Amino acid sequence: MRPSGRKTDQMRKVSFERNFSKHAEGSCLVKFGDTHVLCTASLEEKPPAWLRNSGKGWVTAEYGMLPRATGDRMRREAATGKQGGRTQEIQRLIGRSLRAVVDLQALGERQITIDCDVIQADGGTRTASITGGFIALHDCLKWMEARSMVKVDKVLKDHVAAISCGIFANQPVIDLDYLEDSSAETDANFVMTGNGGIVEIQGTAEGTPFSQEELLKLLSLATNGIAELVELQKQAIA
Amino acid sequence: MRPSGRKTDQMRKVSFERNFSKHAEGSCLVKFGDTHVLCTASLEEKPPAWLRNSGKGWVTAEYGMLPRATGDRMRREAATGKQGGRTQEIQRLIGRSLRAVVDLQALGERQITIDCDVIQADGGTRTASITGGFIALHDCLKWMEARSMVKVDKVLKDHVAAISCGIFANQPVIDLDYLEDSSAETDANFVMTGNGGIVEIQGTAEGTPFSQEELLKLLSLATNGIAELVELQKQAIA
Amino acid sequence: MRPSGRKTDQMRKVSFERNFSKHAEGSCLVKFGDTHVLCTASLEEKPPAWLRNSGKGWVTAEYGMLPRATGDRMRREAATGKQGGRTQEIQRLIGRSLRAVVDLQALGERQITIDCDVIQADGGTRTASITGGFIALHDCLKWMEARSMVKVDKVLKDHVAAISCGIFANQPVIDLDYLEDSSAETDANFVMTGNGGIVEIQGTAEGTPFSQEELLKLLSLATNGIAELVELQKQAIA
Amino acid sequence: MRPSGRKTDQMRKVSFERNFSKHAEGSCLVKFGDTHVLCTASLEEKPPAWLRNSGKGWVTAEYGMLPRATGDRMRREAATGKQGGRTQEIQRLIGRSLRAVVDLQALGERQITIDCDVIQADGGTRTASITGGFIALHDCLKWMEARSMVKVDKVLKDHVAAISCGIFANQPVIDLDYLEDSSAETDANFVMTGNGGIVEIQGTAEGTPFSQEELLKLLSLATNGIAELVELQKQAIA
Amino acid sequence: MRPSGRKTDQMRKVSFERNFSKHAEGSCLVKFGDTHVLCTASLEEKPPAWLRNSGKGWVTAEYGMLPRATGDRMRREAATGKQGGRTQEIQRLIGRSLRAVVDLQALGERQITIDCDVIQADGGTRTASITGGFIALHDCLKWMEARSMVKVDKVLKDHVAAISCGIFANQPVIDLDYLEDSSAETDANFVMTGNGGIVEIQGTAEGTPFSQEELLKLLSLATNGIAELVELQKQAIA
Amino acid sequence: MRPSGRKTDQMRKVSFERNFSKHAEGSCLVKFGDTHVLCTASLEEKPPAWLRNSGKGWVTAEYGMLPRATGDRMRREAATGKQGGRTQEIQRLIGRSLRAVVDLQALGERQITIDCDVIQADGGTRTASITGGFIALHDCLKWMEARSMVKVDKVLKDHVAAISCGIFANQPVIDLDYLEDSSAETDANFVMTGNGGIVEIQGTAEGTPFSQEELLKLLSLATNGIAELVELQKQAIA
Repeated sequence: MRPSGRKTDQMRKVSFERNFSKHAEGSCLVKFGDTHVLCTASLEEKPPAWLRNSGKGWVTAEYGMLPRATGDRMRREAATGKQGGRTQEIQRLIGRSLRAVVDLQALGERQITIDCDVIQADGGTRTASITGGFIALHDCLKWMEARSMVKVDKVLKDHVAAISCGIFANQPVIDLDYLEDSSAETDANFVMTGNGGIVEIQGTAEGTPFSQEELLKLLSLATNGIAELVELQKQAIA
Repeated sequence: MRPSGRKTDQMRKVSFERNFSKHAEGSCLVKFGDTHVLCTASLEEKPPAWLRNSGKGWVTAEYGMLPRATGDRMRREAATGKQGGRTQEIQRLIGRSLRAVVDLQALGERQITIDCDVIQADGGTRTASITGGFIALHDCLKWMEARSMVKVDKVLKDHVAAISCGIFANQPVIDLDYLEDSSAETDANFVMTGNGGIVEIQGTAEGTPFSQEELLKLLSLATNGIAELVELQKQAIA
Repeated sequence: MRPSGRKTDQMRKVSFERNFSKHAEGSCLVKFGDTHVLCTASLEEKPPAWLRNSGKGWVTAEYGMLPRATGDRMRREAATGKQGGRTQEIQRLIGRSLRAVVDLQALGERQITIDCDVIQADGGTRTASITGGFIALHDCLKWMEARSMVKVDKVLKDHVAAISCGIFANQPVIDLDYLEDSSAETDANFVMTGNGGIVEIQGTAEGTPFSQEELLKLLSLATNGIAELVELQKQAIA
Repeated sequence: MRPSGRKTDQMRKVSFERNFSKHAEGSCLVKFGDTHVLCTASLEEKPPAWLRNSGKGWVTAEYGMLPRATGDRMRREAATGKQGGRTQEIQRLIGRSLRAVVDLQALGERQITIDCDVIQADGGTRTASITGGFIALHDCLKWMEARSMVKVDKVLKDHVAAISCGIFANQPVIDLDYLEDSSAETDANFVMTGNGGIVEIQGTAEGTPFSQEELLKLLSLATNGIAELVELQKQAIA
Repeated sequence: MRPSGRKTDQMRKVSFERNFSKHAEGSCLVKFGDTHVLCTASLEEKPPAWLRNSGKGWVTAEYGMLPRATGDRMRREAATGKQGGRTQEIQRLIGRSLRAVVDLQALGERQITIDCDVIQADGGTRTASITGGFIALHDCLKWMEARSMVKVDKVLKDHVAAISCGIFANQPVIDLDYLEDSSAETDANFVMTGNGGIVEIQGTAEGTPFSQEELLKLLSLATNGIAELVELQKQAIA
Repeated sequence: MRPSGRKTDQMRKVSFERNFSKHAEGSCLVKFGDTHVLCTASLEEKPPAWLRNSGKGWVTAEYGMLPRATGDRMRREAATGKQGGRTQEIQRLIGRSLRAVVDLQALGERQITIDCDVIQADGGTRTASITGGFIALHDCLKWMEARSMVKVDKVLKDHVAAISCGIFANQPVIDLDYLEDSSAETDANFVMTGNGGIVEIQGTAEGTPFSQEELLKLLSLATNGIAELVELQKQAIA
């Protein structure tokens, strides 16, 4: 019944390719089916201006899409002269989500920037970015640990991963691809930790409003899916 | 226990001053306590380019803050040369929320722009904007009805209102003011219709992640609060 | 003969609502008939870079219009990405006018920003901004005096107020509203001090050029009008 | 007593070099002493969008300064990414001043752009731009007349020229150079037609406010100076 | 003697991965050693405005670098708000180079945009972009041929490829990597067709000027290298 | 056979007018026939940020065109809000070319900015800018020498000049004017020192690719032309 033939609670094949980039302190090419996002972590040995002398560091994120990551070519934001509202919304979400599992005090006065660049898009780019961005962040901290700058276990308090769920053809389903996303009645993104705590929930009725029961069904799908993603993250960094 | 002395389920005093603006087709100064937002509805007799010849119209929103609406003066976005990420996120939310109760086909090939300008801010500006923006939109449609352009009842499918809830000092509370907002562990915005359907839910853990139980408590507070707001809207436009 | 029925030397009803804003060090909602401008004064405890270590401070102004302050909705300058030429011209005028009565040495190394935001426009927004901006500036200095930072009488050398005059239907008239302004042959703005000294005069022939005699008639109208405005300012801050 | 040794009512040497530019329909290098401005007139065979099908044309102006036209190098506005407030104020003034002597109906649905680029600055660049811009505009209309597009006498209703006057060392003087301009107490720009009608007057007190008597003295100086400039214009285009 | 141990006339390992992108009409991941560039070709069924009704089409290129493609993270151009001078220079070069082998008349009134996005940089990104961009362009034309829109052989007149050469440690060498590039005395980029015709040559003395003899040695290295690249292109698209 | 009647190896009349600008430390109006460029050199007593405490200085260039320097009026880049790709390409070339003959260590921690503003364009503006920019740079250094800041002979290592050559109507010709430039098959710009060393070579096939033999013919024309330009520079600064 889903265009891809998947079951309602079945995510696409997820994979992490670590150390994808030669230069970055941490990097990961994450794939959720045909959605491919390159996440890199860049360490800077000073925090943003407003954190100077606070003893605390910062984790931030930037998001971009290659112009032909999508079915129709989109205008390059660098050529347009500004990042659109959607881009800004997404990169703020990624940053908030990753910071939720970081002890900024333990990080010290440094900044780590997670760049999430969508190489190919097929729905769910923001949730893939968070899930893969965690790996890049982890590997950057490992790189720092190897140089005695931090202890990974002190800085990273937990795992964090994200998944989208939605109501498609009157059925709650997990991990919407582009086809589903563009005709779903309701679309919700969930960000959760390894312990199952909710970091962020964003649900939007595209057509008719949804009910509390529907929200709970989506939350249940997401809880299972994110547990699975955290498991995959653990295997990847083992 | 709340800085304002309010009970956990007590909203601030809410008021709507209709026809605040001499020029706009619809307008409303909405107040949630010390948060004051001027909402105006402007009718344009042609839809955005991508809806030409579709028979459908559009409702969109823009959001701004006067530089000294806040405790510290913020730089004027017109002087900065761009709207920040937060502004864009909020105006996209307001637009989506209002469109959820509009029949765009019944509106016809026109555009209504809801401008929400924060005159004074004390937390909850986006939810006040949605709640007051509904009144401005309604009054604009009334103005059109008086000119035989539309039937209000055909275009407006339901009421829509919004409220923020959060976990402050370990307690779920409704309608956070600035003091609460800046130290809340969790902050969630709810947009719901008169029928109790959920249009949008955005929950963020500022500190520790929150649980499904906490989410449900916030949702319950919001459901009651929004019912009350819809009642106030009904009185205002009676 | 005037659309409003006013006499040629009759200004619109002028009022000042002090302390309009909860946050600003000084604020005033000034009304000239249907022209309503919110003026706030924001104190910053350091001067602009080019005045560091000069012992002198600065007073500057910014001006904006809400998109639907006017009969037709105007594009939001923050969305356009820049302030138009008219906006910049006006805010430079307001700043110059207020500085004309300020002893910058007595102010000390600080900056006061006067934000003038037009809530509703019906002609004369720049002269209302100057006249009301003076009240906001005064109240900001009072706030500082209460904290032993300055003496108001040392910093403020005089009152300053402004009015527009013009030739409408071949008659010199004072305080043009929008209807008059858009068809006046000549339009002139006058800024004067409490002592009757001229701070700024800007006269423009919209249609046929004007003569020295006409200029003097406009100046005479303005002199009387500004004396009246200064009187109203004195009552307001008494 | 003036730094240049000029008498109070003595302008600098003024000259017009017509046909300075090979490409433009009209052009003029105007010099007021060491202030040199290149004015070109460019004809476009369609009016701005808002005048389509109105039967009327438009005359507009743009103003720029070469980065090292001044004593200290100024940042190039093209590199900064926007035209400053001063630039916009000046180009709006030039456009208004020239339009005051143009019959836009007789011009027909066309646009003439007057570019005024300051090659070297020594005070009075805006008044030189207006005075020289008139010559470029005239020559462009001559070029059009030679092609039977318009009659110069129908389009140009009169001459227009401009001069600055000010109070320097307590004395009203005409045509301030940079040295005078930077320490004048009052600075006023006058734009007048060949018939002595006032098109624009902009007077600003830089130090103490000025009186009506002082204004009249400046106006008297300007009236004589502009009559002289118009005479020079007539000789130049004879 | 070269840091990589390569011989002076030895290029890095070059590979082309066609159909890298699911959505684009043509795409190719080109690698010159550690320099990896994703080239996509996007077809648009209308030409740029200035070619309407000319019967001719257009091929253009855009270039970008992921922020962490380089050793130090570079600011994202979309966040900066404009494309830097280097980016614009490179994308103009890529476009000119590809158009040199395209019959724009045979292409018809369409536009093909070649996006070259550097995933990882180690010197020579512009020459890799041209060489790989040719493959993407070819595959896009194949896609069009399959839909009877064009004949590839009519549109593509020849192959085109590019290589950099330079004088490093006093020796002419081919295909500089980043280490060599940053200390080379002379750096030259060559673009040539399959027939050995020169399309573009850009030589720059970074240190001491170079002589005609040195230029000829670099040209000779490039001629051989480009012949080899064209051979690899032919194998790739066979 | 050339539109201007010049021989294939004949440059246009070249002249240098030194001290064109009253304010700049060095300035030169350079003319190559109808191409007129004003070059000014501006000294700043601190280097760019990235050279602080390096003991070295910097020479940079900016390039602009007056809007009506060309046959059709071009939009003013300051109004557009950014410098186009062509402008940036040219100003980077001018800067690189001039730095090739400057000992930045001997200059000391200062910056000289060469502004090249095209007053009138008829082809070859970038090569005229380099050739005239050298004079402005030289004169700025002379100005500094007169103030015991540097020794001109220590800072300036050689002359530098530039010329364009191209293949027009199947013939290699030197110093293309606009008519030739717009229909040349190949267009190449050469920058060389007084000693005949090549600083920069940029050759582009506009139509069919060119051969090594053609390149050598253009190089030979350029070598002679630049020797002549250097001779003219020597006479000018003698």
